[in-house]
Amino acid sequence: MSIKIGILGYGNLGKGVECAVKQNNDMELTAVFTRRASETVNILTPNVPVYNISQLENMQGEIDVLILCGGSATDLPEQTPKYARLFNVVDSFDTHANIPKHFDNVDKMAKAGGNVGIISVGWDPGMFSLNRLYASAILPQGSNYTFWGKGVSQGHSDAIRRVEGVQDGKQYTVPVNEALQAVRSGSNPQLTTRQKHIRECFVVAKENADKAQIESDIKNMPNYFADYNTTVHFISQEELNEKHSGIPHGGFVIRSGKTGWNAENKHVIEYNIKLDSNPEFTACVIAAYARAAYRLSQEGQKGCKTVFDIAPAYLCQQTGEQLRSSML
Amino acid sequence: MSIKIGILGYGNLGKGVECAVKQNNDMELTAVFTRRASETVNILTPNVPVYNISQLENMQGEIDVLILCGGSATDLPEQTPKYARLFNVVDSFDTHANIPKHFDNVDKMAKAGGNVGIISVGWDPGMFSLNRLYASAILPQGSNYTFWGKGVSQGHSDAIRRVEGVQDGKQYTVPVNEALQAVRSGSNPQLTTRQKHIRECFVVAKENADKAQIESDIKNMPNYFADYNTTVHFISQEELNEKHSGIPHGGFVIRSGKTGWNAENKHVIEYNIKLDSNPEFTACVIAAYARAAYRLSQEGQKGCKTVFDIAPAYLCQQTGEQLRSSML
Repeated sequence: MSIKIGILGYGNLGKGVECAVKQNNDMELTAVFTRRASETVNILTPNVPVYNISQLENMQGEIDVLILCGGSATDLPEQTPKYARLFNVVDSFDTHANIPKHFDNVDKMAKAGGNVGIISVGWDPGMFSLNRLYASAILPQGSNYTFWGKGVSQGHSDAIRRVEGVQDGKQYTVPVNEALQAVRSGSNPQLTTRQKHIRECFVVAKENADKAQIESDIKNMPNYFADYNTTVHFISQEELNEKHSGIPHGGFVIRSGKTGWNAENKHVIEYNIKLDSNPEFTACVIAAYARAAYRLSQEGQKGCKTVFDIAPAYLCQQTGEQLRSSML
Repeated sequence: MSIKIGILGYGNLGKGVECAVKQNNDMELTAVFTRRASETVNILTPNVPVYNISQLENMQGEIDVLILCGGSATDLPEQTPKYARLFNVVDSFDTHANIPKHFDNVDKMAKAGGNVGIISVGWDPGMFSLNRLYASAILPQGSNYTFWGKGVSQGHSDAIRRVEGVQDGKQYTVPVNEALQAVRSGSNPQLTTRQKHIRECFVVAKENADKAQIESDIKNMPNYFADYNTTVHFISQEELNEKHSGIPHGGFVIRSGKTGWNAENKHVIEYNIKLDSNPEFTACVIAAYARAAYRLSQEGQKGCKTVFDIAPAYLCQQTGEQLRSSML
């Protein structure tokens, strides 16, 4: 019997979840839900319906886990608690500062509905958080470092596109190699924002726009660019479309610490990922945690959980016996 | 109130656990137990007793978690089930092929005694296993690769020392850089044993020994060296003592996989560690899981568990709330 998956929101992440469900042979896609007119949304999976979001409330019992693929700014704070009352849910809420509040909201509604809600699933928050936690538990005397990239930052790309005279643009966050090497050496460096990442911008200027002004506006933009070494490359729309249309990303979580009676021994733990598609990878993590949500719910558990609260074996199709003999 | 830790076996690992307990301020060392005459064993922690192993049975109620620091060949298969009947226990049983049987033995006795037993804790099995599992769950369509080193292999060093004419020796397992790079590129290579690791031996020959014969005996030793490219360096006892007395180790777990409707996107997940002291790092992982054993037992759980069965939050001192706001 397959785990019946519903997807709410069919952007890059929703499509990624659809692809992930295809790769997991214990799951099947039941329906995609959208705020758009459902007949305008074409999905990849044959013979699976697309419904308007208003249909969701009639689907209790037909979906084992609803995956929420909206944005963290306005969609998820409202949708995740709301639908946690009706379904087991998984989201990728990634506004780190608001996680505690989101957790409480989802917890209350999931408990009220007798469901499991898993929030903030993906790679950061998600796999990176797990690696910070495991490494911190193992090496209590040490420091954590997180680097992001090389990859496309959607927020920074949007910021570029709001600059006067800009027609289009993409921003890559790039870790500074010297900083990475210093951290890997275990030397435990203190690093400023500027020392850890550079920001590389590819910009298409409108005809007759003042490029020097654009470059200056970008480089001096507070919060987004002013605290970083930023490079701006002007290119044509054709080149942007051809070379910068992907959504790659990645990053590094490193902890260095010391052990021994006099802290005489050094250790470095590193986790890193290199992704061709940020949303598809996030979707794969979500699919694994959807399996966990289903199983926890089958066991009678209720309430909100994060990746910290879920034993790894729940993510896998295999039995405990199979996992012990094949992967331990 | 601290978690009261007992250590059985005071070799490199036992000493490492003692150091790890010192770094975790919610733990205290209650006693060290040894098969040796207890008065011949000097430990680092002031005012903590060393007892003969025969005293262990009288210590129920005085120890929250007993950490078993013996060897996997003969000590742990007997000790872990035996003491799981009396205490919550953690071991680092690392004979991969025998884990299922060991699990069953410990499970039966831990359940009989109402205790929690966590087996095969360390880095492989342990953290490497966890990373194989997480990455496999995330990228179902992909391949796992594990590389060990650069580090000292105790078993291979022992094998060298058994060769005729050898006075002393140390063996390093070294991952082949080209193989690592090929795996990291996501090209999903098929690699033979010889292509993944080389074996580097530092050997002290006895006076007048036949060095050519020693080198040939080592390189052709079945199982240990014959399937690898092996290099043998003859050095003096002084040089061996001076430059090769440490116990460094490390390694890499890498999974590459594909996502997308037509598997068009490539992803690489890597976990790697670089350790000055293999036993001290193993001990640190064990200490974190001792905390988990204590907490699970407090919740009324019983039986044998592995790293796969334990939610990450159990490893940390912090509350769920603290973890969510600081690490997620």
